[in-house]
Amino acid sequence: MALELKPPHEASFAALAQVAPVFFSCVLSFAYIAIYWNNHHHLLQAASHVTGRVLWANVHLLFWLSLIPCASAWMAKNHFAQATVAVYGAALLAPAIAYFILSRMLLRTHGPESTLARAIGADVKGKISVLLYLLAIGLTLLDPRLSLAIYVLVALIWFAPDPRIERLLAERRRNARRDQAR
Amino acid sequence: MALELKPPHEASFAALAQVAPVFFSCVLSFAYIAIYWNNHHHLLQAASHVTGRVLWANVHLLFWLSLIPCASAWMAKNHFAQATVAVYGAALLAPAIAYFILSRMLLRTHGPESTLARAIGADVKGKISVLLYLLAIGLTLLDPRLSLAIYVLVALIWFAPDPRIERLLAERRRNARRDQAR
Amino acid sequence: MALELKPPHEASFAALAQVAPVFFSCVLSFAYIAIYWNNHHHLLQAASHVTGRVLWANVHLLFWLSLIPCASAWMAKNHFAQATVAVYGAALLAPAIAYFILSRMLLRTHGPESTLARAIGADVKGKISVLLYLLAIGLTLLDPRLSLAIYVLVALIWFAPDPRIERLLAERRRNARRDQAR
Amino acid sequence: MALELKPPHEASFAALAQVAPVFFSCVLSFAYIAIYWNNHHHLLQAASHVTGRVLWANVHLLFWLSLIPCASAWMAKNHFAQATVAVYGAALLAPAIAYFILSRMLLRTHGPESTLARAIGADVKGKISVLLYLLAIGLTLLDPRLSLAIYVLVALIWFAPDPRIERLLAERRRNARRDQAR
Repeated sequence: MALELKPPHEASFAALAQVAPVFFSCVLSFAYIAIYWNNHHHLLQAASHVTGRVLWANVHLLFWLSLIPCASAWMAKNHFAQATVAVYGAALLAPAIAYFILSRMLLRTHGPESTLARAIGADVKGKISVLLYLLAIGLTLLDPRLSLAIYVLVALIWFAPDPRIERLLAERRRNARRDQAR
Repeated sequence: MALELKPPHEASFAALAQVAPVFFSCVLSFAYIAIYWNNHHHLLQAASHVTGRVLWANVHLLFWLSLIPCASAWMAKNHFAQATVAVYGAALLAPAIAYFILSRMLLRTHGPESTLARAIGADVKGKISVLLYLLAIGLTLLDPRLSLAIYVLVALIWFAPDPRIERLLAERRRNARRDQAR
Repeated sequence: MALELKPPHEASFAALAQVAPVFFSCVLSFAYIAIYWNNHHHLLQAASHVTGRVLWANVHLLFWLSLIPCASAWMAKNHFAQATVAVYGAALLAPAIAYFILSRMLLRTHGPESTLARAIGADVKGKISVLLYLLAIGLTLLDPRLSLAIYVLVALIWFAPDPRIERLLAERRRNARRDQAR
Repeated sequence: MALELKPPHEASFAALAQVAPVFFSCVLSFAYIAIYWNNHHHLLQAASHVTGRVLWANVHLLFWLSLIPCASAWMAKNHFAQATVAVYGAALLAPAIAYFILSRMLLRTHGPESTLARAIGADVKGKISVLLYLLAIGLTLLDPRLSLAIYVLVALIWFAPDPRIERLLAERRRNARRDQAR
């Protein structure tokens, strides 16, 4: 992600200020990739087995995630012009859909009573995120800054401690202690 | 792989359209590397031990895989000119041969009755792929688009769920359940 | 990190000498990232469980570490001009604070009697480092070379064998032997 | 390593031929890094415990290895000019010395009767390599092509199956079978 951030040519604080938009989009994209990385890690830890289809759904997700830095760089370089902000929204929407596909495929092989099903839950956050991305892409026609505000908002929603994940981690902690006590 | 994809200079959807050939070759190359990554992962999981020769066969495969992004970028930058499409075909052929060498070396040390031998099977897909790559390289003299269609076709052949891998995964799943039940 | 180091254009030893400032900042940044990598590895090994907050503190640390190569390249390219040396100091200060936050969050969930608490200890090195970074950033107004000397000094402090880590490693070694002897 | 290999600008086989020197140095450097990667993997697998000093010796080795691609690119871009070939030799010599330091530090903590000591042995290959690198650096004054031939020769020496490693792997295989048979 840091590859995207090129150092300015001049050696002054003013030159550094010019890098601010790139820095902002770099932070936003880093946050998004970190969110996926954390959730993906939990999802696969909760999975007890994988099928060939799940492996491809996983690669599909990784493909879209790998495009985020490029979309982010394009947006920052063009000072958040309308088309670039819309494309960035699409670059966030695509992995959200890919993540949804991956979690549904895992659910199908694990059944509704599995630890995995509990870890995924109703996935309200995931569904709201998709709607917000679509709204943000539409809003680029009005004002790209509104779209950027929504992208920041979605990241904040995901940064808030997730009761599902906390519950799962607490459970795993209790199980680990119980196993040690035996 | 995404390093290959440079954002366009202008901030319009038209500028984005110009990136389409790079995007296409990027998707194709990503798919190929994902296919090798998945198969390689299964191959080494089925292996119970490795020799020094196997380690070098593995490095040999990685070397050729690491050249795919470069061949892909060259092809896309030159709008799929004849020579570049032929070289891209060679860049796909080389890891296919390297993968064949690796699987034969593993077979030799494991014997025909091993789990590994069952996982590899007759390797019909691998053999057909090599023939199709050779055909595609030849067809660049006629029309490079025919060659590209074959590269896409080979990727689709590998994307189709592989009964060998599915069988192996199902078996492992059963074994894991049996071990837990004990 | 080596991505930062571009080979000179001319093929002479004189051309190589011109790369010396880049090489120096590359070595310094590599040393810093190695220090964090080693300490981070030990910190997480001593942790027996993680919460959602710890995961984010971890990502926060990784974000700041990923900016070090960029700050380092900017500084070297501008021959250690005042503003660039101050920004490099900030780029070293930020992960130091992020590491402190991470270790406090881990401490809170593990309690003062845990192996982790012993591994962290009073964290004198960490606190001195933060003070030295602040001093160095201030000293750029006087002479950036003083600041660079302090950055080197802090790295040397961390390179010195850490009794806390050595003790922890020795303990783990003893435990491993005891487990084998059983 | 493949990052070093930039695709040529023109779309012809002739343009590809111009990339040949870069390709050669890329193959050579890839081979060297693969050799270290394999040997390093075996060395650390044979180690039963590490100290803080060993961790730093390890980082020291990684630092020098990370410079090989840059030295390699410089050499290829300047068509194997004298100074660049000498510097490349130094870039090969440095990790060889770092590897020697790492293996000595591991030996000191494991004792002469350990599995590790047997895995390292008298390290004849390592000592010969250092002498050959020094010879090659000197020979750049006469003809850089002689030096390149020596770099290729050293790589071939390491590619030859290593009886020490083969013995160790065979032993591990026997132990694994014995453990299963119990």
